[in-house]
Amino acid sequence: MAAAVALGWRGRGRTAPNPNVGCLIVKEGRVVGRGWTQPGGRPHAEAMALAEAGDEAQGATVYASLEPCAHESARGPACADLLVAARPARVVIACGDPDPRIDGRGVARIEAAGIAVTQGICTEAAEASMAGFLTRIRLGRPFVTLKLALSIDGRIALASGESRWLTGAEARADAHAERARADMILVGRGTYEADSPSLDVRLPGLADRSPMRALLTGGDAPEGWARIAEPGAIHALDGINDLMVEGGARTAAAFVAADLVDRLLIYRAPILVGGGKAGLADIGLDSLAAAHGRWRRIATRPLGSDLREDYVRSR
Amino acid sequence: MAAAVALGWRGRGRTAPNPNVGCLIVKEGRVVGRGWTQPGGRPHAEAMALAEAGDEAQGATVYASLEPCAHESARGPACADLLVAARPARVVIACGDPDPRIDGRGVARIEAAGIAVTQGICTEAAEASMAGFLTRIRLGRPFVTLKLALSIDGRIALASGESRWLTGAEARADAHAERARADMILVGRGTYEADSPSLDVRLPGLADRSPMRALLTGGDAPEGWARIAEPGAIHALDGINDLMVEGGARTAAAFVAADLVDRLLIYRAPILVGGGKAGLADIGLDSLAAAHGRWRRIATRPLGSDLREDYVRSR
Repeated sequence: MAAAVALGWRGRGRTAPNPNVGCLIVKEGRVVGRGWTQPGGRPHAEAMALAEAGDEAQGATVYASLEPCAHESARGPACADLLVAARPARVVIACGDPDPRIDGRGVARIEAAGIAVTQGICTEAAEASMAGFLTRIRLGRPFVTLKLALSIDGRIALASGESRWLTGAEARADAHAERARADMILVGRGTYEADSPSLDVRLPGLADRSPMRALLTGGDAPEGWARIAEPGAIHALDGINDLMVEGGARTAAAFVAADLVDRLLIYRAPILVGGGKAGLADIGLDSLAAAHGRWRRIATRPLGSDLREDYVRSR
Repeated sequence: MAAAVALGWRGRGRTAPNPNVGCLIVKEGRVVGRGWTQPGGRPHAEAMALAEAGDEAQGATVYASLEPCAHESARGPACADLLVAARPARVVIACGDPDPRIDGRGVARIEAAGIAVTQGICTEAAEASMAGFLTRIRLGRPFVTLKLALSIDGRIALASGESRWLTGAEARADAHAERARADMILVGRGTYEADSPSLDVRLPGLADRSPMRALLTGGDAPEGWARIAEPGAIHALDGINDLMVEGGARTAAAFVAADLVDRLLIYRAPILVGGGKAGLADIGLDSLAAAHGRWRRIATRPLGSDLREDYVRSR
């Protein structure tokens, strides 16, 4: 199942509004099919894996990171029906699909056909791999990552505004890879005007994965940019699983204050800046006690001389 | 030798102005003597280990983290002479003692007695264990650690001044253990007046290891506190190997701006504070390029939900 979840990660940022599912089919100890949701959301992971497995799927074990879909679409048949037709011995599912069109119907249809279903394997890892989709279905808004490149002392720029570069080449490449996993990137008016960021993915082979761009502004958005009037407006975004907020300090603070950040992605440069621009403006905190218990550090990883720190919101 | 260096760490913060040396004596694969510089600086590590080994020292291998002393003192004989009298087969030394009274004389005296000497084993680890003493001898001032408890975004307090507690119990206990390794702790006038810090070591069994206290102030220091008029004045401190600077932001900045910080000890709480008090005030930085290449992250370690980050100055 861990391998199926890893396959699903390949689609993160490219499958919205569909989930980025991964699927692995194993027969007698051999992998006979591998699939992941393709760009644009189709084919689904199971369809891809079943196509590769062909007749070998009969009697095999199918690992899917999400419950197979049970609703037919103009764009393809329901995966539950494909599985029933392929006659595997067992289907193993990491987590159920909360989409009201599915929500147990996929499992029911497979079990009704006499195929064994095992649920709840690697659930946490699978949910993390599809956090964008799951957050959209459960909370009605994208999964929001706040990315900040910070000095040891939490600065993003000198008082003069100089901010290039705080972090090194490895950290910046990693940040571009993270961009490729987002459907949309958002900055504030100040960052837009100061840096004119292109917000594209500047990595070999990934240039076509540049996400949509959004501007947090009370005014108009420029050509090619979506306009987000205030953080709560992300509830109205249609079909965006993953949103990355890239700053500046007031935009970051607006999302944190609205409790609309699910993940902090910190690139920590080994430098001291002292006086300069803070990475996060006022968030209206009135006691330290209120600040605690909200963030859980799940990983730290060196990137060149920088340190990447991942935190998730405890909910 | 790693074991000898570890023994030496036991004395850090209690042996000034002497070095905190560790010594291990091994004979036929058995440890027959262990020593470390005792509180106040005497007995020396070698004397303690040789006393434990007794006649077993003859023909043994002696591991010492620092070159044995060669000068007699009213407080005890020279370790080189003790070693010559004990007749070990070999003396292994991690690093030479740059103290002008020694500086090779210890090695010369042992070799002149026909005892083999090996040098340069575990030198880096040994130098780190005695960084306080070595910095005092080489640079004429204490080794300076700047300790900061910071939020993810580099704050030390709310705008209201509330700063208790940013970090959790494990991090605070670790900070007290670090205090016990310092000879002197320094704060600025603002921190003194706002927090009236006692700066003692509040750990079971270590209460008697509380270091001297110093105040960075242009005015008078209170009873029981040393007065440091400006960071450069630490060159005039007598017999202080390790100085820990505990803030606040202006005091930290004064030491960083004077390039008088050798180590950053960061306790990072998993919280966002936003507007509030920054951990480091202006350090007069005029370009990001000038900030890079100065600090090297040598360790990160979880302490409860906090993260300890250790950086050393690259010189």
